[in-house]
Amino acid sequence: MNERVVYCVSDHTGVTVEAVAKSVLSQFPSIEFSLIALPFVDSAPKVAEAAAQIAATPGALVFSTLTDPALRARLRDSGASLFDVFELIAPPVETALGQAATPAGGRIHGMANDYEARMDAVNFALNLDDGLNPGRLGQADLILVGVSRVGKTPSALYLALQYGLRAANYPLTPDDLAQAQLPAVLLDHLPRLRALTLSPERLAAIRQARYPDSRYASLAQCREEIAAAERLFARHGLVALDTTRMSVEEIAARLRTRP
Amino acid sequence: MNERVVYCVSDHTGVTVEAVAKSVLSQFPSIEFSLIALPFVDSAPKVAEAAAQIAATPGALVFSTLTDPALRARLRDSGASLFDVFELIAPPVETALGQAATPAGGRIHGMANDYEARMDAVNFALNLDDGLNPGRLGQADLILVGVSRVGKTPSALYLALQYGLRAANYPLTPDDLAQAQLPAVLLDHLPRLRALTLSPERLAAIRQARYPDSRYASLAQCREEIAAAERLFARHGLVALDTTRMSVEEIAARLRTRP
Repeated sequence: MNERVVYCVSDHTGVTVEAVAKSVLSQFPSIEFSLIALPFVDSAPKVAEAAAQIAATPGALVFSTLTDPALRARLRDSGASLFDVFELIAPPVETALGQAATPAGGRIHGMANDYEARMDAVNFALNLDDGLNPGRLGQADLILVGVSRVGKTPSALYLALQYGLRAANYPLTPDDLAQAQLPAVLLDHLPRLRALTLSPERLAAIRQARYPDSRYASLAQCREEIAAAERLFARHGLVALDTTRMSVEEIAARLRTRP
Repeated sequence: MNERVVYCVSDHTGVTVEAVAKSVLSQFPSIEFSLIALPFVDSAPKVAEAAAQIAATPGALVFSTLTDPALRARLRDSGASLFDVFELIAPPVETALGQAATPAGGRIHGMANDYEARMDAVNFALNLDDGLNPGRLGQADLILVGVSRVGKTPSALYLALQYGLRAANYPLTPDDLAQAQLPAVLLDHLPRLRALTLSPERLAAIRQARYPDSRYASLAQCREEIAAAERLFARHGLVALDTTRMSVEEIAARLRTRP
């Protein structure tokens, strides 16, 4: 059998269990997996419904993050192979800590402060998107800088949503690129600048998708802009992150840790 | 010991291992954990550096997602308690699938198509934020609707970044709320509307943070707007999602699955 249905069952959003399932299953490249998410399975009736759906799927695998052992046991009754993150990882952690896990603890999802900080960061990223409100750059944790379509906006939003960081982004326009140094408004903030670059070929492909056959999307123009941007970065000792083969998660994770 | 340092070591972004560590550790509420992220540990020199840092931290716990067993073994040499997601979860999956995991497989992170789709979705969410470009609502997967500050924009961006869904958002203004039905521009898209609501008290607190002592942020105004919005939703048979106590992840996960 080279195809398998995989259920990701969680008593909350399922973001963690889906990430774990995808990571582990990527180590079985000869099998094609179809993932079905079943989030918010947090009561006996809901778990019974999930178990019935699973039992009707031959050869299904089930990854789960269910904090309540009783719900987990009920899911196992479906007869499917069940891999519960808590069940597999908590026991060695219990041994290391010398104390038993409290299953109910996993249900407490800290929200208030974290939520406010991240929403504030999202609003900040939107208010300082694409060079808007440069007078507020001093409030930014990070300032992403690079040419148009290098990936600044999605990266800034991801930094805000995932990490609660206040990320501004500032585009280098052709006018900026013609100068000998970075725009004056950025020079006060050099330690917080994060330079982004990518291959001219990839940039041209991204721009072509939006403005086909334009000068803006031409390979010649992309080459010129990238070369000029990299000269400016070097002028100020900024090491640019090459995002050519990176996902937005990877860009954000690298920008977050890189000085 | 009621405090522990926890390292989250990954050969990629570390998003998965941080999520797993937080989930599992939330089941030990009497211990205070400080998390240190060490992403992109993908070579022998980098793992040696991480191991040295860990060895210098008494009582450290280490959660990891390292696909290369040799790097994992080197990390274990640090003497710390190591919980590797692959090591703990892959073996039962191997048994269920009847084949061995290919550690290198985990290094392949599908990017191209997924990346394009998500970036396209982010641009869509930005272009159709706050009622912009209503002529394009027909292209949306979901249309979030609700009063100002109910959480539409962050939820739409998260749906785009996490799930690649094209989520528009449309604010119900006081003018809209004074009508007997939803704005005409939304009526063609009823099956894709997702109504959001929250408690007037929470809405007032969110608005107060931005516009203190304004009529806009007053509890009376918030009560009136929420009541009017809920009447409109009921008029069209829309069940509103109450986001009062929800994180943005939870809002997005619920909107994604709810019809």
